[in-house]
Amino acid sequence: MLNPADPGFVAALAARLPEDTLRTPEPRHLAEPRGRYHGQGGAVALPRSADEVAAVVRACAAGRVGIVPLGGGTGLVGGQVMPSGPLPLILSLERMTAIRAVYPAENVMVAEAGAVLADVQAAALAADRLFALSLASEGSCRIGGNLSANAGGVNVLRYGNARDLCLGLEAVLPDGTVWHGLKRLRKDNTGYDLKNLLIGAEGTLGVITAASLKLSPIPAGQGTALLVVESPAAALDLLAMAQARLGGLVSAFELMHRMGLDFLAETMPDLRQPFASPPEWMVLIDLGLPQGLDPATALEGLFAAAMAAGLVSDGLIAQSGAQRADFWSIRENIPEGNRRIGAISSHDISLPLGAVPDFIAAAGPALARLGDWRINCFGHLGDGNLHYNVFPVRGRSRADHENSRDAIKSLVHDMVHGFGGSVSAEHGIGRLKVGDLERYGDPAKLAAMRAIKAALDPYGIMNPGAVLRG
Amino acid sequence: MLNPADPGFVAALAARLPEDTLRTPEPRHLAEPRGRYHGQGGAVALPRSADEVAAVVRACAAGRVGIVPLGGGTGLVGGQVMPSGPLPLILSLERMTAIRAVYPAENVMVAEAGAVLADVQAAALAADRLFALSLASEGSCRIGGNLSANAGGVNVLRYGNARDLCLGLEAVLPDGTVWHGLKRLRKDNTGYDLKNLLIGAEGTLGVITAASLKLSPIPAGQGTALLVVESPAAALDLLAMAQARLGGLVSAFELMHRMGLDFLAETMPDLRQPFASPPEWMVLIDLGLPQGLDPATALEGLFAAAMAAGLVSDGLIAQSGAQRADFWSIRENIPEGNRRIGAISSHDISLPLGAVPDFIAAAGPALARLGDWRINCFGHLGDGNLHYNVFPVRGRSRADHENSRDAIKSLVHDMVHGFGGSVSAEHGIGRLKVGDLERYGDPAKLAAMRAIKAALDPYGIMNPGAVLRG
Repeated sequence: MLNPADPGFVAALAARLPEDTLRTPEPRHLAEPRGRYHGQGGAVALPRSADEVAAVVRACAAGRVGIVPLGGGTGLVGGQVMPSGPLPLILSLERMTAIRAVYPAENVMVAEAGAVLADVQAAALAADRLFALSLASEGSCRIGGNLSANAGGVNVLRYGNARDLCLGLEAVLPDGTVWHGLKRLRKDNTGYDLKNLLIGAEGTLGVITAASLKLSPIPAGQGTALLVVESPAAALDLLAMAQARLGGLVSAFELMHRMGLDFLAETMPDLRQPFASPPEWMVLIDLGLPQGLDPATALEGLFAAAMAAGLVSDGLIAQSGAQRADFWSIRENIPEGNRRIGAISSHDISLPLGAVPDFIAAAGPALARLGDWRINCFGHLGDGNLHYNVFPVRGRSRADHENSRDAIKSLVHDMVHGFGGSVSAEHGIGRLKVGDLERYGDPAKLAAMRAIKAALDPYGIMNPGAVLRG
Repeated sequence: MLNPADPGFVAALAARLPEDTLRTPEPRHLAEPRGRYHGQGGAVALPRSADEVAAVVRACAAGRVGIVPLGGGTGLVGGQVMPSGPLPLILSLERMTAIRAVYPAENVMVAEAGAVLADVQAAALAADRLFALSLASEGSCRIGGNLSANAGGVNVLRYGNARDLCLGLEAVLPDGTVWHGLKRLRKDNTGYDLKNLLIGAEGTLGVITAASLKLSPIPAGQGTALLVVESPAAALDLLAMAQARLGGLVSAFELMHRMGLDFLAETMPDLRQPFASPPEWMVLIDLGLPQGLDPATALEGLFAAAMAAGLVSDGLIAQSGAQRADFWSIRENIPEGNRRIGAISSHDISLPLGAVPDFIAAAGPALARLGDWRINCFGHLGDGNLHYNVFPVRGRSRADHENSRDAIKSLVHDMVHGFGGSVSAEHGIGRLKVGDLERYGDPAKLAAMRAIKAALDPYGIMNPGAVLRG
């Protein structure tokens, strides 16, 4: 059983750290974007270095006090707030924001965990390189949190998830030792993959304090198109065609449904819509091409071939950077439109690519047996990752359907699980999906996870209650 | 302390398994390619399914009997043979060779652990797809071993190591439970990354029985060039230029030194050499390009730009598939040439890319202070991975220098470590490099590894003595 971070503990710890390292938590240290959880904390620690993080962790280990690591606080599953249980210490990385080094010739950067993702991207651009991780909250999320949650986003198809963009870590383990693992190597087979174990562990196995990150060359040319497809199945055939023609050069392949455009028309009437009458299904495709390949030509060729094959019935190819931005702003505003409408239940799911059409075909009718809904199904089709969100019909509100949420969620998750999919594609488990993990997780894997947690964090101080029940 | 797989244990286990599952080990079950270790085993188990593997592991866990998992037996660090200690059971995956399924539209294949890498590649090709893992032993190594060792090879620059080509695993854990983790998902953030923990664990945390593997589109065109560079530093500048011009389309970037060509001339005089007089340093560059980009044109453009920048002084661009094969056969025969000459000490090292020239410049003179040697430095420069091998001068043999091997190895490894590199880039730890891992490994990481091993394999039955001292 953990002890609370009570005033005595906080005062004793404060005395061992530089002045102003411990503070009273501010509201932003206790909130999460969806407002489902409200955090608590005896204090927030604001260390300036891995050694200071280590001192905090050692004290908490000695005192059996829980620690909630905090990055940008943008996570959507409550991994960053502990609403109940013995008062924890919040450990915010917000003062560790340095870009320690950029090695353009190596395509490597070393950044501290508190660096905001947009600042990491900007530091790469300043060195004429790309840091490919890109997601909606990039203006405020922090790279340590992105790695702890193994963030996804829009470029996973080409560049991988956060874990694929990380070459090494510096981290403080639950006993307060510092793992100096900031290697800048593409190949290193010296022992167990502790890096990937910490990535995606959501702060339950240690605190990431810095990372060496993989950069990429900036494509010589970029192109974007919005293509109207008959169905999700046609979208998948289009993806296969694009991959065959363009190899690994498709950066993003995003599916959108008419409902998303309808929501935008309803909630943001000033936003320029690409089509006079919104099509049922469309795909946003983004290319990053090397010298010698013109994006517009490549997209026109793809468009013509897809038309000839009956996969695409209409489409727009961006003719300028401004038009590219317009197309992307449609996609990027869909979550905000959803927020304004107010979902009854949101689902961050992934499926084997081949199962996506069957899932979409089956889920709608099954949900209709529970009531009348509006469904906005969109997302990173190239990764098999859909945001499948269920809304009230016009004139009703989410509050009218609180009683239906659990049934909707179970139906969707059961169906996803049945198709061999995942009930958390990119958002993680946090505290919101602990029950889902227990329900859908493989028993042998869960037992191994519990054994690993007990081995590395025997007192259970790291982010108590996240991922695994405490 | 473990118990031996003595006749009583073997007989009891045999009685619980289908007939002919246990056999007397053959010489091939006890050998490793470099002949440093000779294995032992009370029996070899040849299971046909994950359930049979689980039955074997459960029995060994109950009896506290060690298990040595065996794939193709091609590993270079003795991970596949246990030369001493209580007689283990050898568990060979050689009967589990099925390609369970190919999903071309998903770019996924599910293969059993015993499938030979070349057969996996062929099954992908038959579906018009590429399985990108490619290495010297592909005709006999097995995919389960490739994953257990996180194999590298020539395509890592573009497609990643073995772990980057794996989407999911089926594995038997040390308590004999089967983890059913054969997901075909690109995004799945549901708990700790058990997949990457087993990959690279060299059979010490469980037995991989099947894997879902990532396939890629086959590039529309391929091109190969041999370019003469002034120095390793010029080679790195050439790599940066190629990456900037061609993005992620450089499949391989291999450094070769004149010594490798000299060895081939000495040991394989019939092999066609590309240059009349071998240059000091050269690079083999391989491109896989999409529709619309001609490989020869792209290579000519790169060649001209590199000449203009003073990075390249001469070069050959393959004009046919036969010439591509010729260029590659030079690179691929270098290890055989080395074998025939007989290295005193071989080193599978990686370095931060920027440190490669300094390492090469420093290592030669430092080694010269220990004696007269011939050094063949070659390898996967794009990954910072060098095979830095030290040979006797003409007229002497490796046997003349047995006493120098340890000093040579320590000098090279100390220097690599000092540059932030790895003393095992792609071959792993096995039994050969356990001491190196203890010497160079980060203490916090080593402690975490030992804790994980004890948690998942409390009796220490899985590949005893590999990676971590028993």
